[in-house]
Amino acid sequence: MPDIGQPAASSDRLLGAGTEDVRRRNLSALLRHVHVRGPSSRSELTVATGLNRSTIATLVAELMARGLVRERLPDPRGAPGRPSPLVEVRHDGVAVLATEIFADSLAAAVVGLGGRVLAHRRVDRTRAWRSPEATVAELAGVARALIEDGPPERRIVGVGVTVAGLVRLADGFVAIAPPLGWRDVALASLVRSALPIDAPVHVGNDADLAALAEHTRGAGAGQDDFLLLWGEVGVGGGIVANGRAVLGRTGYAGEVGHLPVDPEGAVCPCGSRGCWETRVGEDALLRLAGLSDRPDARQAVDEVLAGAAAGDARALAAVSEVGRWLGIGLAGLVNVLAPGRVALAGVLARLYPHVREVVARELDRRVMAAPRADIEIVAAELGAEGPLLGAAELAWSPILDDPTTVPVLVTGREGRSWRRSRAMEEVMPGRPR
Amino acid sequence: MPDIGQPAASSDRLLGAGTEDVRRRNLSALLRHVHVRGPSSRSELTVATGLNRSTIATLVAELMARGLVRERLPDPRGAPGRPSPLVEVRHDGVAVLATEIFADSLAAAVVGLGGRVLAHRRVDRTRAWRSPEATVAELAGVARALIEDGPPERRIVGVGVTVAGLVRLADGFVAIAPPLGWRDVALASLVRSALPIDAPVHVGNDADLAALAEHTRGAGAGQDDFLLLWGEVGVGGGIVANGRAVLGRTGYAGEVGHLPVDPEGAVCPCGSRGCWETRVGEDALLRLAGLSDRPDARQAVDEVLAGAAAGDARALAAVSEVGRWLGIGLAGLVNVLAPGRVALAGVLARLYPHVREVVARELDRRVMAAPRADIEIVAAELGAEGPLLGAAELAWSPILDDPTTVPVLVTGREGRSWRRSRAMEEVMPGRPR
Repeated sequence: MPDIGQPAASSDRLLGAGTEDVRRRNLSALLRHVHVRGPSSRSELTVATGLNRSTIATLVAELMARGLVRERLPDPRGAPGRPSPLVEVRHDGVAVLATEIFADSLAAAVVGLGGRVLAHRRVDRTRAWRSPEATVAELAGVARALIEDGPPERRIVGVGVTVAGLVRLADGFVAIAPPLGWRDVALASLVRSALPIDAPVHVGNDADLAALAEHTRGAGAGQDDFLLLWGEVGVGGGIVANGRAVLGRTGYAGEVGHLPVDPEGAVCPCGSRGCWETRVGEDALLRLAGLSDRPDARQAVDEVLAGAAAGDARALAAVSEVGRWLGIGLAGLVNVLAPGRVALAGVLARLYPHVREVVARELDRRVMAAPRADIEIVAAELGAEGPLLGAAELAWSPILDDPTTVPVLVTGREGRSWRRSRAMEEVMPGRPR
Repeated sequence: MPDIGQPAASSDRLLGAGTEDVRRRNLSALLRHVHVRGPSSRSELTVATGLNRSTIATLVAELMARGLVRERLPDPRGAPGRPSPLVEVRHDGVAVLATEIFADSLAAAVVGLGGRVLAHRRVDRTRAWRSPEATVAELAGVARALIEDGPPERRIVGVGVTVAGLVRLADGFVAIAPPLGWRDVALASLVRSALPIDAPVHVGNDADLAALAEHTRGAGAGQDDFLLLWGEVGVGGGIVANGRAVLGRTGYAGEVGHLPVDPEGAVCPCGSRGCWETRVGEDALLRLAGLSDRPDARQAVDEVLAGAAAGDARALAAVSEVGRWLGIGLAGLVNVLAPGRVALAGVLARLYPHVREVVARELDRRVMAAPRADIEIVAAELGAEGPLLGAAELAWSPILDDPTTVPVLVTGREGRSWRRSRAMEEVMPGRPR
């Protein structure tokens, strides 16, 4: 069958490829392969990319010169004959800084190629509305400590920020972040000014970035059509279709918590009525269980789930009702998107084992047999770290697209250093001193 | 900002490009450009593809040799100096056959490059359940007449079929087609056996193909994030995200008519309750207007709309109520997909001018300000011909992806003919005699 998935007018299919484009594209294909799939022999790389061995050799040499990959002999056990060297990413050269801004916590991590977390720090805080400036200053403190503790030869080449809000992709502007009480915040600029790193700053929505992380190396790996549901107080969605994140025209897609499933139902914090998140998520469960007033919502949820498991009637009824609405909304999303796999994170992941049958019943009832047979519902694998790891993938993305933006390494009297080049200046003119 | 839309693990980004791949990709880029954008000067092509002039010249020569494009001098009026020749598609060489299987009609069209309809025939029929075999035999009759009336040197290189059902993309198998009363029909095989053409047969869902056509050269042109709503008895959706059709894992995405907007509401023909299409579409409007028993549903809808325009209270109430539900479901889809443009087709397009304000009110209420500001609602431009034109684009797709599958033309004593090559045999060993 032809690729109906690629309509004729798709802009990226109209672009031709010159020699330089091809070299960059091949370097990108190779680096992505070892970044996503891990250490690979040259033979594996020829199969995976369709390129011949001599081209692979040239490309690997270039990535090595830029300090992005190295070759090593595999573990010699077992295989007879001369072992074929493995190409693998290096963690001692460039890295990215991933940061997280949630209502309950701030976090930062230094992440190497291959998604390796080299350093990580999370700071819990009480839920209270703080100004974007104060929050970013606190975040910068967390990040600075991580960077200063790291080896001096490490270079931060990109910064990713995950935030619980609607993010305009073009410039990392946050249109609204309800859990933080923010509206119209130029977050990418704020973070860039606050950090002692002169690298591009990229901002994404928490559910979108959790989906990116799960798709790259978690529950969505290898799934071209994938949906992640991120449920805490509200419910957000991260959608992958045709192997790419679906973010909408400006970046605001995935607000699945605001599907109208009960249009004249309960008032939603968004101002509408009967949004899906008024029926699923923490608040709905605690309200049904009669525990709305508990300040420790997470622990209260665990108590309701434990109560249901122990046969407590009110807890069982609450869990079952939330499960029914989980199935109803999920049925709508499956009818629209028909993904192969749906991963649940947060409170939805904790709830799901208790409501598996109720959810299945709603899906059976509301989704036609053929798409119904496609759906697999699983727990997200990266859990609460998903958004932060997705922020790292977001920050890596431009390097993976064009590895030539990382300059060639030179070895001098003082050991290895980065060659000062124009490209170098662009990447990190203001590196931490 | 990096392209968050392209997660690292996307399979098509891992593939490298060898020399032959690059040539094919560039031929594809060039042919797509003139197919979608129309006649283009070589300068325009260099700008559009990023390739240099000599590469463009070589590629154009190859496409000319295959009978796909030609060069002509532009209209001389106005511009001083020597005019630059335009590259444009040829309509006298290869063409595709597009066919349509609806409950009310069968249609076929011979469509050239550039989407030019070279011949077209539609046969209305009464709504009644017929076997797939009988329907395909009737369709083959319609198509055969068109092909036999065409010039003998024309070659049909692909067949597209649009059908009102859930289509498995991999093999054109129809899982279910409620308006036709079909279930589990190997439609691509059936059509292939019934036609006197040995070319690949590709099957797609009507709303998906209408979206493809509108995206290629209609209301969705240039829109990377686009939604088409196809409303008649039910409501189907065609989704484009990141410039590509969103079809789901197997092909079943876009069943937006089965969004549960009123979960314990009216029974839907799908077996569920409260699906969106029980609240919008022909049946809902006629039921509310008290005209459910009319056999001429289309005309009855027009009477309700005329009644509303003339101030008839019952018609106004019916139209307004359907409009409100149109807004509710649309709000859900905008929250999930955040497209830049939504195009309405069928009964929804006829209804919309009467309910513009009601729809806007629901969107204002149920979509946050930032995504709300992105949405533009328009009428589909290709109307009822959308699915058939989309079937043509579907059939063109493999040729546009790899123009080298069309063999080189040779000129002999009997005029121009196709060189007999292996590729040629593959394309049309059983051409109509």
